[in-house]
Amino acid sequence: MTLWTLFFKNSNILSEENSTQKKDILLIKDIKYKNKLVEVYLSTNKNINLSDLEKLCDSVGWLRRPIKKVKTAIQNSFLIVSLIQKIDGKACLIGFARATSDYAFNATIWDVVVHPDFQGQGLGKILVHEIIKELRSYEINTITLFADPEVVVFYNNLGFVSDPNGIKGMFWYPK
Amino acid sequence: MTLWTLFFKNSNILSEENSTQKKDILLIKDIKYKNKLVEVYLSTNKNINLSDLEKLCDSVGWLRRPIKKVKTAIQNSFLIVSLIQKIDGKACLIGFARATSDYAFNATIWDVVVHPDFQGQGLGKILVHEIIKELRSYEINTITLFADPEVVVFYNNLGFVSDPNGIKGMFWYPK
Repeated sequence: MTLWTLFFKNSNILSEENSTQKKDILLIKDIKYKNKLVEVYLSTNKNINLSDLEKLCDSVGWLRRPIKKVKTAIQNSFLIVSLIQKIDGKACLIGFARATSDYAFNATIWDVVVHPDFQGQGLGKILVHEIIKELRSYEINTITLFADPEVVVFYNNLGFVSDPNGIKGMFWYPK
Repeated sequence: MTLWTLFFKNSNILSEENSTQKKDILLIKDIKYKNKLVEVYLSTNKNINLSDLEKLCDSVGWLRRPIKKVKTAIQNSFLIVSLIQKIDGKACLIGFARATSDYAFNATIWDVVVHPDFQGQGLGKILVHEIIKELRSYEINTITLFADPEVVVFYNNLGFVSDPNGIKGMFWYPK
């Protein structure tokens, strides 16, 4: 099956009830997992299973965050993108990213994560491309993020520029 | 009159109809303008006059942006803060800043502007302090911004740190 090919309708992987997203699930790629090819789906539905998201974040060693705040953050993000693999009829969240925005000029991408078992196969790139595509459909021109040193090259390869014109990313944390 | 002193009620400077903000106007400071002391008010009301905002942005030489998109951006910002001066019974917008957020973990400050006639009197600091205070009231811990080189020291003095732990601010623009 070729990449980026089939629009996948009528999926029962995620509940699509109450979704306000304009599309929910696309079949995007067959990727390798334990010497098998598995199907991977892309969703922009905000009604994701928060326990699954917690497990995904655990898998990359992120600090746990209160589920209630995670729910608030998702509901108030401009956009979330999830990647779901389906193997033997079972669905599993393997990738996630989200963006905040003013819906007009600026957006900031946060929390890009791919499960270690599926890294190195272009899924991070797919997540970020999807976010850029959605933001551009709203004519949002300034897409930003804050990158840890080890992923700066990854984002460079996706067209992101560090400190353009000397602009510095700055952080304020509680004392 | 001392600074940061009086909670100002019943102001007619801005329409407070339909406001969802928890407070609208505080009397914050008497500042100098053409050898007079003028009163300056702080508001978090999103119903600001967009033509006044355009004039304020013109005064610092920013590129004009479509009014309709500015309205969308304000409505979808987590918070806006305005400074209004009142002289001879007339109100005038002299400062503005806003922030996007997920209402839980992260926020990004955008569009901090003070009219050139009122710069150098601490109003930029008041705008940013007010945004930090509001964000902290929601227990939002990561407050970010992108600073042009000439204002990096200004934000350093307000407690912002550039590139903490090597984290880089990155931008993607349409080709």
